[in-house]
Amino acid sequence: METPKLPTQPYKGTRDFYPQEMRLRNWFFGKIRKTLENACFEEYDGPMLESLSLYAAKSGAELAGEQTYHFEDRGGRHLAMRPEMTPTVARMVAAKMGELNFPLKWFSIPNMYRYERPQRGRLREFWQINVDIFGCDTYEADLECIISAIDVLRAFGATRDMFTVHINNRRFFNDVIAAVAGVDAETGRKISKVVDHKGKVPRELYEKELTALGLDEEKIAAIDALYGMSVRDAAALCPASSGAAELLQLFTALEEAGLRDYCVFDFGIVRGLDYYTGTVFEVFDNAPENNRAMFGGGRYDNLVGLFVNNAKISGVGYGMGDVTLENFLTTHDLLPHDESTAPKVLLTRFDDVPYAAYLALAGDLRAAGVSASLYLGNKKFGKQLDYAVKNGYTHAVIMGGEEYAADKVKVKDLGARQEQLLSRAELAAFFKETARKKE
Amino acid sequence: METPKLPTQPYKGTRDFYPQEMRLRNWFFGKIRKTLENACFEEYDGPMLESLSLYAAKSGAELAGEQTYHFEDRGGRHLAMRPEMTPTVARMVAAKMGELNFPLKWFSIPNMYRYERPQRGRLREFWQINVDIFGCDTYEADLECIISAIDVLRAFGATRDMFTVHINNRRFFNDVIAAVAGVDAETGRKISKVVDHKGKVPRELYEKELTALGLDEEKIAAIDALYGMSVRDAAALCPASSGAAELLQLFTALEEAGLRDYCVFDFGIVRGLDYYTGTVFEVFDNAPENNRAMFGGGRYDNLVGLFVNNAKISGVGYGMGDVTLENFLTTHDLLPHDESTAPKVLLTRFDDVPYAAYLALAGDLRAAGVSASLYLGNKKFGKQLDYAVKNGYTHAVIMGGEEYAADKVKVKDLGARQEQLLSRAELAAFFKETARKKE
Repeated sequence: METPKLPTQPYKGTRDFYPQEMRLRNWFFGKIRKTLENACFEEYDGPMLESLSLYAAKSGAELAGEQTYHFEDRGGRHLAMRPEMTPTVARMVAAKMGELNFPLKWFSIPNMYRYERPQRGRLREFWQINVDIFGCDTYEADLECIISAIDVLRAFGATRDMFTVHINNRRFFNDVIAAVAGVDAETGRKISKVVDHKGKVPRELYEKELTALGLDEEKIAAIDALYGMSVRDAAALCPASSGAAELLQLFTALEEAGLRDYCVFDFGIVRGLDYYTGTVFEVFDNAPENNRAMFGGGRYDNLVGLFVNNAKISGVGYGMGDVTLENFLTTHDLLPHDESTAPKVLLTRFDDVPYAAYLALAGDLRAAGVSASLYLGNKKFGKQLDYAVKNGYTHAVIMGGEEYAADKVKVKDLGARQEQLLSRAELAAFFKETARKKE
Repeated sequence: METPKLPTQPYKGTRDFYPQEMRLRNWFFGKIRKTLENACFEEYDGPMLESLSLYAAKSGAELAGEQTYHFEDRGGRHLAMRPEMTPTVARMVAAKMGELNFPLKWFSIPNMYRYERPQRGRLREFWQINVDIFGCDTYEADLECIISAIDVLRAFGATRDMFTVHINNRRFFNDVIAAVAGVDAETGRKISKVVDHKGKVPRELYEKELTALGLDEEKIAAIDALYGMSVRDAAALCPASSGAAELLQLFTALEEAGLRDYCVFDFGIVRGLDYYTGTVFEVFDNAPENNRAMFGGGRYDNLVGLFVNNAKISGVGYGMGDVTLENFLTTHDLLPHDESTAPKVLLTRFDDVPYAAYLALAGDLRAAGVSASLYLGNKKFGKQLDYAVKNGYTHAVIMGGEEYAADKVKVKDLGARQEQLLSRAELAAFFKETARKKE
């Protein structure tokens, strides 16, 4: 009698990483880690479970409840599986505020969970590269963040034509709208909220709302015109704004760093979250079939203040999802076609040779830093070779009774399909040399 | 008015990894990954959330419910945060049984959650190195697992005197008890269950239970004597047992592999879980203050059968917790005292030099593979140096107005406290040479 069997598929919106996918993930995160460490960002991590209140404080209780997997533990603590990293890193910075040496340049590559309908580019479990700088209030930190985002993409071979960084500034956004509308700061903020939703409501409603705030047709047209303007022309409309000055400084520095070509000023970039307070940016995929924002970030000034009274530690950062980035690399054919070329050696096995002789060979190769495995089991030679090819071994070592008696081994290159006879003592050196040549 | 602030500590039994702890974790997992890949194990991963039924099927619904964080999603699916990796890997193997090329040599380093009282060596969130071989029914796979466990510990510098692998065999255990007691297999199994709990019940109760199963004093003493026996003497008591033959084969092969010294036969190793069917082993810390099992594993023959009718894919593996391993390394002083010695360069900043000049220097260094950062902000030179020292920079580059005009830079070695003047064009080559020397 058969008992009912368990399903083999993973939970909806999550992924199994078989060795092939895992090699890709390690390659992927390895490149990102190397690029960020090259710029002296330091890696950190926090727990998968956090207090739900962390997300409620940042995004509101309703949104936090809807978008997270959350539950109570037996002690009545309301916990959430992290849907984002920013509250965790703000908590960590707050906890050691007195010991840490600012500015901090930190990054993390955590997995996180969001309760949403799985679709292209959005899964329930995903990894997110998080890059943040804490404790530098000026544009240099914004610049450093943008440089790191560009450098991460370039590390994968992405070129100027493949992506563009769209940049705006939240303070500038408010100030220039107030200036164009000729109103005070308070009315300016109300108008900003309407303009922020420009693309999301019908044009008629948009104009009606602006008219209600006292704007005539001409002023509405002047706001429309901001969307096509250069950063210099837009900034000239409100020369006294500190946001305008910051934006100009940032673009000048991008020019000096040789990165101006990668960046455009885009008045349409606001990023909904209330906590952004200065520079905001989004990185777009330029591919016509996928022309949209891949990821973004910006400056937020007060998150540590959620934890510590009177704390004033500013931050600027961005988060980049692994699924989005992988889609980008696939679209532009930037994934590796060739996997690691380091030798991976299978020692095939014959019954007329003592097992100890194979054990010794494997030990020698491993001690020399060569990846090596004995064939496990008792299948025929042809099956063993077949196994080697299917599991990505680059070479098979063949030591039958004859070779063993002569203190020799045959080495078969499984790619080139060539064989050569070596003395057993030469074997490790042979593969070290093969590895060196392939580097 | 102050609003109530959020707590800054992580959830009970979980850890924050600040850059210092994260460097240690990356060093730690890097060594393990390298050692296992050197033996041709391939890395995989699965989701943090799994169906609760996976754990219930393996460990019983009650245990699965008690030891896991579990909850229902909005679709009424009962989910658990993985408390162990074995059910996930069995599910993954079952899902692609027809495509995979056995034997598989797989490993993973997942984080997992267990709902238990935090104590030394046990946390609620921990990482576990999981090593498994699927699809090889003979002792060679058991041997390969034990070799990999020894090699992982040796990769950290652990020597023979620091740890011991205690080995037994579940089939042998049952057979030798039946032989010593002179009973049939069925009664033998009942006696085995009692003997399995020997250390956990009072001696009086233990003897009473064995007496109830028909054993006299002499036979009870004969079972006691098994605990001090050599593998050969014990095996001689039931020469027909396939478990005894397997155990002898394994110990012979360990001898041939030069690892016999690391291993002892220990009749007391049974490992409670019902699913072990052959070789079982535990690795003990030899330190007197911490002399106990650190981790273990063994052969289990039917986990894939939970998912697929008539599947017969055997497995053998072990799981090693990060906290336990870190305690072991700390006890034996095997953690690194010196962190990475690769140059990490802070470009200090002066107001009378254009920012673009510093940006160019940082770009040059990074392009040459040297980790470099500009000081972010406008603090005085002394504060910038202080920042460099506290954040682990090895060198500071100083380019004030005078140096800039002369196309020079000063390089300050923050460890040796030495300074030298270089031309700007030499800088990248200087650090590449420094890195090469330190390798």
